[in-house]
Amino acid sequence: MNIIVWGDCSMEFFDVIKKRYTHKERFKAISIPRSDLEAIATAGLLAPSGGNTQSVSLIIIDDKNVLDRLCDIASSDGLRSAPAAIAVLINPDMLMKETDYSKEDYSAATENMLLAATALGYASVWLDYILTDRSVQQAYLSVLEAPDNFLLPVILPVGIPDGEGSRRKKIPIEKRMFYNIFGK
Amino acid sequence: MNIIVWGDCSMEFFDVIKKRYTHKERFKAISIPRSDLEAIATAGLLAPSGGNTQSVSLIIIDDKNVLDRLCDIASSDGLRSAPAAIAVLINPDMLMKETDYSKEDYSAATENMLLAATALGYASVWLDYILTDRSVQQAYLSVLEAPDNFLLPVILPVGIPDGEGSRRKKIPIEKRMFYNIFGK
Repeated sequence: MNIIVWGDCSMEFFDVIKKRYTHKERFKAISIPRSDLEAIATAGLLAPSGGNTQSVSLIIIDDKNVLDRLCDIASSDGLRSAPAAIAVLINPDMLMKETDYSKEDYSAATENMLLAATALGYASVWLDYILTDRSVQQAYLSVLEAPDNFLLPVILPVGIPDGEGSRRKKIPIEKRMFYNIFGK
Repeated sequence: MNIIVWGDCSMEFFDVIKKRYTHKERFKAISIPRSDLEAIATAGLLAPSGGNTQSVSLIIIDDKNVLDRLCDIASSDGLRSAPAAIAVLINPDMLMKETDYSKEDYSAATENMLLAATALGYASVWLDYILTDRSVQQAYLSVLEAPDNFLLPVILPVGIPDGEGSRRKKIPIEKRMFYNIFGK
């Protein structure tokens, strides 16, 4: 199979889908070029949003002092070791009044970024459990000088894995994919 | 730029990200090989899920009678004209007890499938507004012979666009992407 180069080191679409995994372990202390971080973030911003409200904004964190201040509030081993991270914010004033699509919006943006990081040879993880407490979100928003009514449900550490992370077990596809009738 | 072939007609990752759009218009009456539908669905099932619960299951609908019966319950112009569709189901018994990650789960799977459809030369749309009413979901589940406690929040029409669909306007990226400090 051919692997082509786009920008520096991109990848064929279905290879990316297959290679993406949840990297919960540590990262190498190797910094990431801003061009790569911007490519990842741009992929996130190109995701669809409910009613095209584009409620997501992103803060790329590559200043180790800022990242350390966030990690002092709440962290994971992976985030603490990452050379960079992308915080996923929702502007509540931009959501549709009738239906709250905030979770769909940030999930689609997050998934695009996990894939884009993979495409460029990095690993990441959909890190949200440290942010379920609203007071932690608000402390993060304060460090990042973002409006205190914003949501900050997810942060993505980005880096080169310090050793290949473990893959999680998948249910066989034939138990989750059917044709026309459930179970068939 | 090189375009490589994977399977029949796949695409470089960032090209897919840029080409994906919300196709609300009609599709051509050209059927889709099951190998392509399975590649799209498989991409959906390879998305991450909260706690790795893998709560999403998918029903590929390529029997026009089944699709017509669904469209008689609730539809859109696009879905009515599509040669195939993929219904996105959530098994509520598989969700984590502590935290409901159903929206994150189906959103990540949906986004993967929208991208995979694009990679194979098709268009799609994240169609959910026809399914906001629980009684519509239940009527759909009944046609598909799926358990009536399942959720069916999204259905993705898949096809070749009958004319290039319109692109929705995007806010300039520099208003949504910052470094280290919000607004910078």
